Amino acid sequence: MNGPAHAEIERFHGAAMELADEARRIVVAAVAAGYQIRTKADASVVTEVDQAVERRLRELIARWFPDHGVVGEEYAPTRPDSAFQWILDPIDGTEEFVHGVPTFGTMLALQHHGAALVGVIDHPALDVRVNAAAGHGAYRNGSRIRLADAPADLRPEAVRLVLSARLNFTRQVDEGHLFEALTRTYPNHRIYRAAYAHTAVVSGAADVMVDMHNHVWDLAPARILVEEAGGRYAVVRDFPASDGDRLISAVFGRPAVVDRVLALFG
Amino acid sequence: MNGPAHAEIERFHGAAMELADEARRIVVAAVAAGYQIRTKADASVVTEVDQAVERRLRELIARWFPDHGVVGEEYAPTRPDSAFQWILDPIDGTEEFVHGVPTFGTMLALQHHGAALVGVIDHPALDVRVNAAAGHGAYRNGSRIRLADAPADLRPEAVRLVLSARLNFTRQVDEGHLFEALTRTYPNHRIYRAAYAHTAVVSGAADVMVDMHNHVWDLAPARILVEEAGGRYAVVRDFPASDGDRLISAVFGRPAVVDRVLALFG
Repeated sequence: MNGPAHAEIERFHGAAMELADEARRIVVAAVAAGYQIRTKADASVVTEVDQAVERRLRELIARWFPDHGVVGEEYAPTRPDSAFQWILDPIDGTEEFVHGVPTFGTMLALQHHGAALVGVIDHPALDVRVNAAAGHGAYRNGSRIRLADAPADLRPEAVRLVLSARLNFTRQVDEGHLFEALTRTYPNHRIYRAAYAHTAVVSGAADVMVDMHNHVWDLAPARILVEEAGGRYAVVRDFPASDGDRLISAVFGRPAVVDRVLALFG
Repeated sequence: MNGPAHAEIERFHGAAMELADEARRIVVAAVAAGYQIRTKADASVVTEVDQAVERRLRELIARWFPDHGVVGEEYAPTRPDSAFQWILDPIDGTEEFVHGVPTFGTMLALQHHGAALVGVIDHPALDVRVNAAAGHGAYRNGSRIRLADAPADLRPEAVRLVLSARLNFTRQVDEGHLFEALTRTYPNHRIYRAAYAHTAVVSGAADVMVDMHNHVWDLAPARILVEEAGGRYAVVRDFPASDGDRLISAVFGRPAVVDRVLALFG
């Protein structure tokens, strides 16, 4: 199918940046004023800030693009039949957020028939944002990102791997053996939650991310960000979750390193 | 033996804070101006900033406390027979520093006959500092830290574990099995380099740190910071390293969680 024209994508990109600005304003104000925290049914934490951000972004999207659908972490999908879908994670890394660890972030993407047109990850506490739009490139705080590939013979100890915590590897399907294989083969790794892990890889601060058994809103911006930066993105798992949702796994980053890591997935 | 008097410790504490201020000024200026990076014999990276910070701190220590010794990551020890030893890691997380990941930090401690009197970890890019002095309490950006203990029956998935990368667990002695045991038992973990990992645990943003086979300058501030914050610190390994140095391993954080994690060390 034909995608939207260049100028229309640029308009969506600008709207996504405004949504990220608005999310950041709400987060910064909430940190200054204080906020309520509660525990969800799955024992994860959520705050009134997560909810306030998602409600406000949904309100703006409904006003600007009344025919677009929205999928978000905190509320039920709207207009699921629309070709255009906004995918929102108002605060990824809520555990980090509530404990003052500054790596949490807002993740948002616009998909057209399932293909991402725009992706943004914004870190209010770090004053860092990565953003990309199809055909328009990827940027970190406004500077164009062009990922250099890694040498194919990089020593395994020199590969800078970022991965999900082992909890993700055993979510729904037990693939803990992959956590072991990855951490043994590439022992110089870091573990962050999705938002900062993705920002690190997109901006070249790490070579490759293995994100396992995660929700669509955790992964929606990554593909367009990585591909527009010159990297490679590969989905390695995609299966239905017990809650009716899907759980997706992806490997992405510098092409030569992604290819090596993919070999571990058999 | 008798330790220094309360007022003298407070004077050392003030000096350590001035050293951290000076380190931060050098780091901030270098980030603005740019700097040279090179690879060390052990394949790790070092920058002229690491070296400039350590040289400047050694110069100030020699001026203020001419009879004190200094042990630092980048230069040979001075006055090794002094009862007072300053332990310096000018930039911990140099890999993070060179790639713009803001979790790097300056670590410094003053020991008297091997017992820490003062500890500071400073994160210039995050504007975060933790500091403590014996009998004076622990602080995060000037606010007193009083760690609440964790409930003894906290579900393993709810324990917020921070640990070293697997590379550390196999340094000199292969204890990779402990990495596996820890990550299986406490699957909701994060991996950061020492400086930020320690700051997170000291300030209550994580429950427990397992720092494996690391140098004295990576661990020197942690004990006094954690103990003054109301936490527990236990050395689990201490052996000679092939370079003539020592490699130390420690578990520290909220007492009830530290006790549970120690059980995995047999």
